[in-house]
This record gives sequence, structure tokens and C-alpha cells, in this order.
Amino acid sequence: MGLGVVGGGVADALLQNPSPVSERVGRAVNLRRVLVRDTSRSRDVEVPPGLLTTDAGEILDDPEIDIVVEVMGGSDPAADYFRRALESGKHLVTANKEVMAKNGVDLLELAQANGVTLRFEASVGGGIPIVGCLMNELAANDIYHIRSIINGTTNFILTRMALQKAPFAEALAEAKGLGYAESDPTNDVEGIDAAYKLTVLATLAYGRRFRPEHVYRQGISALEPQDFRYAEEFGFAIKSLAIADIQDGEVQLRVYPALVPAENMLGNVNGVYNAVEVHGSLTGRVLFHGMGAGRGPTTSAVLGDLVATARLMSRETSLAGPRHFKEQAAVRSIGSVFTRYYIRLIVADQAGVLAQIARALGDEGISIASVLQKDTDLESQSAEIVIMTHPAQESFVQRALLSIGNLEPVRRIGNMLRIEE
Amino acid sequence: MGLGVVGGGVADALLQNPSPVSERVGRAVNLRRVLVRDTSRSRDVEVPPGLLTTDAGEILDDPEIDIVVEVMGGSDPAADYFRRALESGKHLVTANKEVMAKNGVDLLELAQANGVTLRFEASVGGGIPIVGCLMNELAANDIYHIRSIINGTTNFILTRMALQKAPFAEALAEAKGLGYAESDPTNDVEGIDAAYKLTVLATLAYGRRFRPEHVYRQGISALEPQDFRYAEEFGFAIKSLAIADIQDGEVQLRVYPALVPAENMLGNVNGVYNAVEVHGSLTGRVLFHGMGAGRGPTTSAVLGDLVATARLMSRETSLAGPRHFKEQAAVRSIGSVFTRYYIRLIVADQAGVLAQIARALGDEGISIASVLQKDTDLESQSAEIVIMTHPAQESFVQRALLSIGNLEPVRRIGNMLRIEE
Ligand SMILES: NC(=O)c1ccc[n+]([C@@H]2O[C@H](COP(=O)([O-])OP(=O)(O)OC[C@H]3O[C@@H](n4cnc5c(N)ncnc54)[C@H](OP(=O)(O)O)[C@@H]3O)[C@@H](O)[C@H]2O)c1
Ligand SMILES: NC(=O)c1ccc[n+]([C@@H]2O[C@H](COP(=O)([O-])OP(=O)(O)OC[C@H]3O[C@@H](n4cnc5c(N)ncnc54)[C@H](OP(=O)(O)O)[C@@H]3O)[C@@H](O)[C@H]2O)c1
Repeated sequence: MGLGVVGGGVADALLQNPSPVSERVGRAVNLRRVLVRDTSRSRDVEVPPGLLTTDAGEILDDPEIDIVVEVMGGSDPAADYFRRALESGKHLVTANKEVMAKNGVDLLELAQANGVTLRFEASVGGGIPIVGCLMNELAANDIYHIRSIINGTTNFILTRMALQKAPFAEALAEAKGLGYAESDPTNDVEGIDAAYKLTVLATLAYGRRFRPEHVYRQGISALEPQDFRYAEEFGFAIKSLAIADIQDGEVQLRVYPALVPAENMLGNVNGVYNAVEVHGSLTGRVLFHGMGAGRGPTTSAVLGDLVATARLMSRETSLAGPRHFKEQAAVRSIGSVFTRYYIRLIVADQAGVLAQIARALGDEGISIASVLQKDTDLESQSAEIVIMTHPAQESFVQRALLSIGNLEPVRRIGNMLRIEE
Repeated sequence: MGLGVVGGGVADALLQNPSPVSERVGRAVNLRRVLVRDTSRSRDVEVPPGLLTTDAGEILDDPEIDIVVEVMGGSDPAADYFRRALESGKHLVTANKEVMAKNGVDLLELAQANGVTLRFEASVGGGIPIVGCLMNELAANDIYHIRSIINGTTNFILTRMALQKAPFAEALAEAKGLGYAESDPTNDVEGIDAAYKLTVLATLAYGRRFRPEHVYRQGISALEPQDFRYAEEFGFAIKSLAIADIQDGEVQLRVYPALVPAENMLGNVNGVYNAVEVHGSLTGRVLFHGMGAGRGPTTSAVLGDLVATARLMSRETSLAGPRHFKEQAAVRSIGSVFTRYYIRLIVADQAGVLAQIARALGDEGISIASVLQKDTDLESQSAEIVIMTHPAQESFVQRALLSIGNLEPVRRIGNMLRIEE
């Protein structure tokens, strides 16, 4: 299977050897060409020079290329490349929210008319698989609403403003310094990027055409530190939400900073994380939370689409999982677990017990992080000791517990629980 | 397309008119037979008597049935029905975690050998689309770990024990009373159900065969109220987690009650909710949160699989979304939004200002829920007033803000933000 890539962003993942894509598809998927603006520019990703081109035709007109991956961004010339690719019978995988928001339905129909697929998981939510889920797993639901945090830059700035009560300009500067905001941050802070993504989600959720202009937008630049102080006093966080809902068959689309109850899951989405809450007629509320952008999550979404496309071409439809399940897995015993432990003991209320217990733990190399001695029961002359250990291997803890259970003043081991942090 | 259903659970959803499945597939999907134990039993779902049967052959041997949906439960005779259905070239959709945990890989291979699909989204996580996501959207990732809360009964009991410091027996009785626990709760409280589900997830995540016996299990019946008290003191919640992780190519599978930091998302999954956290090599951590069981979520998952299967049969693969996007959506303006509002005003620090503002709001029928007067600035003689309104329609709020902006003592409208609860 031949592959052409428009834009250099995910080329490294496609050049890996062994190729994770070929492995998952069960058939070789070969990268044939990568379109860039400047072949001589130095790149962090080592692309063999023979693969680079600045001529789109070398991808769009190459009959050996079955699938085009677009990670170039912008609507021009991307939209035009899309049409040419689909019309010449090439499957398309894209990360382009702008083109999908502006021309998504037309392109999907064009793909269908040409008997090819168009996938765009990476266009919304990065590592959060919301596009595929709305199209497939949640397809039987009527969607009552989508409430989402789908711009990581904005969410990073708001999180900074909330934590440090910093002015907008300062939080924005910090975001730029860390590479989370572009030099011209308009698309992010004015909600344009989120409006593109919301348009894509609403189109899938409601099966109708929407355009970015349908989205009411309010940016975050007018927020001031005291808004965060007051919101907090009332028990709220401030988050830029992208919302789609439907009432009497009419849809409302909006992107704005809103107060969200602090104990609400959306109120706890911080930093560059994204989250999408879908309220479906059958599922009730389902929340997806993960990294919304960045190379890894975008690559995950693009390669996931690529694997799905290639599997479909190979008719690997029934498994749709790893092609061959290996015979027998190597499974580790519980004794190999390495974590911290909570141990509750019921002991005789007498001096020196704790020392004996600590020695039994120490003999197995387990050190104690903290101890509580509690609830002395006068009648039975017993007390409870609660121990939190430092990380240790479970097999040693099990052995220590055996010794502890045999200590004379230990009446009973109340509970041993692992700590998962 | 003909459909046979084994077990009565989702028949109602398949009998709806207009049929949401047919609508989403773009082609009639007709329910031909429903297999039950007792055709004469009264059911809350009205199934036309002609459709009911107690003879499995009427489904498995009917050449007009292309897809079999199984929601009967248990491994016997379900596993046998699966084999017969797949061998006679019927696609299969199932909610059966036990069969998938015990024979999943064999059945998937049997499906592939017979050129049909086997889908099982409903077997894990109910309304949470974790099965499909592991197979498709996350397919390009190496999975470092899965950490999940996948038994709603157990999580309900633990939530009760945590909130009320109730003994296990009492919380279990409450769960039974509400229909969340069966009369014999062993499968849930001893982690057997979770072990089945974890086996399914691990098989997909690692592409290897696992069996339920590979899962280390510890139930929740030994937990005592003081464990919750102590955990809370240390800043932890207690949750029954199902965990799969991999180290040096070896997998560890376990189900046990563990201490989870209270501020962690998994620590805040309460009641019958489920959650699955997947740590992928590309995506980082992705969290899914939703209802793990119950009729709605199970139906959502089963119908989602059914739509996917039927679309594939109809080669509706390129859109994989609503078949035809309707021309133009009806879109409501922002003025139609109905919610509560946060309004911050900068006003002259003089008597009677609040009364004027309240009147302007009252004139538009907007009532005030609470007011803060803050931060008097001595130099500029100005003060800040923060108002939280009761729910109101945005168009009225916008109009009130125009009037308020024109009030003489109002220097500036600091911000107006919506409250999303
Ligand atoms: N990075 C992320 O976090 C992320 C997340 C989600 C979605 N996306 C989407 O991915 C796309 C690209 O993002 P990015 O961050 O990878 O952008 P980028 O760093 O600017 O990379 C753009 C790539 O496309 C090439 N390119 C741009 N315009 C071109 C043209 N007219 N002709 C030929 N090649 C052209 C560039 O070539 P040169 O190398 O020669 O400059 C470069 O390789 C966008 O759609 C974006 O929305 C990115
Ligand atoms: N309900 C949920 O929340 C949920 C969630 C996830 C997964 N699931 C899965 O869905 C399956 C069923 O759950 P459920 O709660 O719907 O169970 P249920 O209420 O016990 O229903 C079982 C259905 O199957 C029929 N049936 C059972 N044994 C049969 C046999 N030997 N021959 C013919 N028909 C038989 C029953 O017929 P009668 O009507 O005549 O009794 C009934 O219609 C299980 O795999 C379960 O794990 C359920």
C-alpha cells in the first residue's frame, strides 16, 4: 500500500522501522512522498531526501499512492488538494479542522461518490477519540448536548489565571514562552479554533450542515484576575467551553468563557488538557478527557485513521484488532507489583508493639512513610495501627505480613490495600 | 437486512418506529426473531408474539438472518450459539463479557475465517466506547497501562461506604434494594465480573491471549468503615480498580480495592459510574467516564455495533456518519440561551447604585440570586459589584446590560459570563 504525506509533521512516525502501522495492518504500508514547502530546510525529523518534494502533483497524481495523509494546516491550498486526492480515488486522512469545518460535508460526499474514505480524527481533540465515537460507537444516540474544552492554549491560559490570579497578558506570555501559544494567538484566544472544532462535532452529532459562522464566539482576553477570585468564592471555575445543544429541533452553537461548578469534571480539566462531554439519549453523559494537541496525540489520531483505512482496504474488517493474537501472554504474578501500601492492624494496646511491627517490615526492606495509632477499645484492650509504606515490592510485603500476623500482640490484620497514584 | 436477537433485553429499541438503526444505516434492518426462555412470560417490552421463539435454530438456521445480536448472558449455551452463528456466516454483536473473556480470541478468529464480523462494545463499560477505541482510534499506541473502574455495583457500594461510613453489609443491602446488585452478588463483589472485562481489555490492548484466571482478584467484602476514614485522612478514596500494565514485555492483571488520591479523576468516579484510563505511548493518558451498565448504555453499545455492522454490509464505509447530511441546520441565536449569569460591574462608590441596577434587571424579569460588593478603590472612588442571577434568557440579559451600562453611576461593565451547571 502506498502512502503520500502532505506536511512534514508525522513523517517520523511513518518512517519507523519496524513500522507500527504496517504491523497493525498486517501488510506493508510504504511512505512514498512527503510534501513540504522547503526541501532544504533542516528538520528535527530525518526524512530521506528522495522522499521530500515541493510538487503536490507528485503525490496527488501518483497512481501508486492509495492513501494521502494531510497535516499541513490552513484551508488553502489544502481544500484543493483534498478534492484532487478524492477525485483520483485516493483515501484521505487529515488533521485539518479548518477545511473540515468549512467544507466537511461536501468533501465527505465527494469521498463517498468516489468510493473512498475520508477520516479526520486528529481534527478535534487530539488524543481524545471523539470524532470516531460520534460516528460509530455513539451512533445510535440522539445527542442532547456536547459540552467541551477543545482548545488547549485557552485552557492553559485560564488555568494560569486561576492559579496565579495573573492578568491575561501575563498568562498569554507564559503560554507563548512554553510554545503553547503561537506568536499571533488570535485563532486560539478568540475562539476561532474552537469554533472550527465545534462545527465538526455538531455536524457529526446532528447529521446536518453547519458552518463556523453559526457559532457564537466570545474570547477570553477580557477576563480579569478578579473574575477568577469571585468565581472561586462562589464555588466555580472559569473555562472556555464549546457547546452544542438542541431544542425543538434547533441547534445552538457557542464558544465562550463560562463559570463551571468547581466540583464538576469539566471544572477540573486543567492546563493543555481537553475534555468533551457528550449527553446521549441512551448513554447518558459520557466524558472524554485527554491531551488535545501536540505531536504525540495528533500522531496517534492520524495513525489510528491510517490503520483503519488500510485495514478496510485489506478487508481486515472482522478482527479490526491486532491481526494475529499471539498464543499465550507472559503474565506476571501479583508479587511483582511495586507500589505503596496501606496496612491496618488490630493489636493489643501495650507498649512496644509498633517497634515489633516496624522491625518485621524492616526485615523485608520495607520502610514506613507514616503511622496512625487510633481507636483504642478500652473493653478489649485493643488498638488500631494504620501504616502507609514507601514503595515496595508486593512479594516482600506479603512476607512481612505473614511475620506480622504471627507476632504475639497482633490480634488481626484488618486490611492491606495498595495505593495507586 | 435481517436480524435475530438472542435474549429479550434490547428488543424494544429494535422495535421502534421509525427505527433509529435503519435510519442510521440508510437501509431497512428488520427484526425477524427474538429468542427467550419463556414466550408466555409477561414483559415490560411489548414484543409481537410472532417474533418470540424458544428455539435457537429459528435464528441460527434462518438464512434470512444476516446479523445475530446476543444479550442473553452466561457462557452456556451462549458460546455454542456464537460458534453456530459465525460458522453459518452470520455477523455477531454481543454484550457477553464472560464468553468474550473465555473464548474471545478463538471466536474472533472463527469470525475472520468465515468472513464475518464479531463486535462486543457492550461487553465492557456500557456507554463508554472503550472496546472500539482500543481496536481503532488508539490502535497506533503501545498501551503502557489501563486503570479502570468497570464494575458499577462495586463502585456504588464503595461510594456508599465512603459517604456514610456504612459497613459493607449495609451498603450491599442498599445496592440490592435499588436493583444495582443481584441477589447473589458474588460475581460483582469478588471482582469476577471485573476480571472478565479486564481480560477483554487486555486482549485488545496487548494483542495477546489472556484468560480470566490470569487476573489476580481481591474483593471488597473485607473492607471496613474505618478503612474509609483513614484513607480520607490521608487524602485518598478507596476504589476497586481493574488494572493491566506491562513491563519488559510481561503483563500484570489485577482487580483489587486500592487507595487513589482524592483529587485524582479516578478517585472522583462515584456511584454506578465507570471510568477507564488508558495510558498510550502517543496519546498520553486518556480518560473515559460514563455509565457502565443499565439498559440505556447497553442498548447504545449494542445498537452502535449493529449500525457499524450493517453499514459495513452496505459498504457505507466512507461516510460512516449519518448517511445524508441535511441541507441547512436550523440554528438558534445566542439570545435563546437560558442559564444563570455572572455580572461584574465597576460603579461609583455611592449610595443607591445597587437599587438602580436591581431595577434595570427587574425591568427585564431577571432576578438576582446573590450580590457581592467588593474592592472599593479609595483613589478612584469606585467599587465592584458582582451579581449572580437566577436563570434567565440571554436576550433579556443583554437588554438589561444595555440599560445598566447607561446608568450614571455605572463606570463600566467588567464582565458578563454565563454559568454552565
Ligand atoms: N501540532 C499539533 O499539536 C496539532 C494538533 C492537532 C492538529 N494539528 C493540525 O496539523 C496541521 C499541521 O500542524 P503543525 O503544527 O504540524 O504545523 P507546522 O509545524 O506548521 O507544519 C506544517 C507542515 O506542512 C508543510 N507545509 C505548509 N504549507 C505548505 C504548502 N503550502 N505546501 C507544501 N507544504 C506545506 C510544512 O513544510 P516545511 O516543513 O517545509 O515548512 C510543514 O512540514 C494543522 O492542520 C493543525 O491544525 C496540529
Ligand atoms: N443489563 C445490563 O445493565 C447489562 C450491561 C452490560 C452487559 N449486559 C449483558 O447483557 C446480557 C443480559 O443481561 P440482562 O440484564 O438483559 O439479563 P436478563 O434480564 O436476565 O435477560 C436475559 C434474556 O435472555 C433470555 N435468556 C436467558 N437464558 C436463555 C436461554 N438459555 N435460552 C433462551 N433465552 C434465554 C431471557 O429470556 P426470558 O425473557 O424468557 O427470561 C431474557 O430475555 C449479559 O451478557 C449481561 O452481562 C447487561
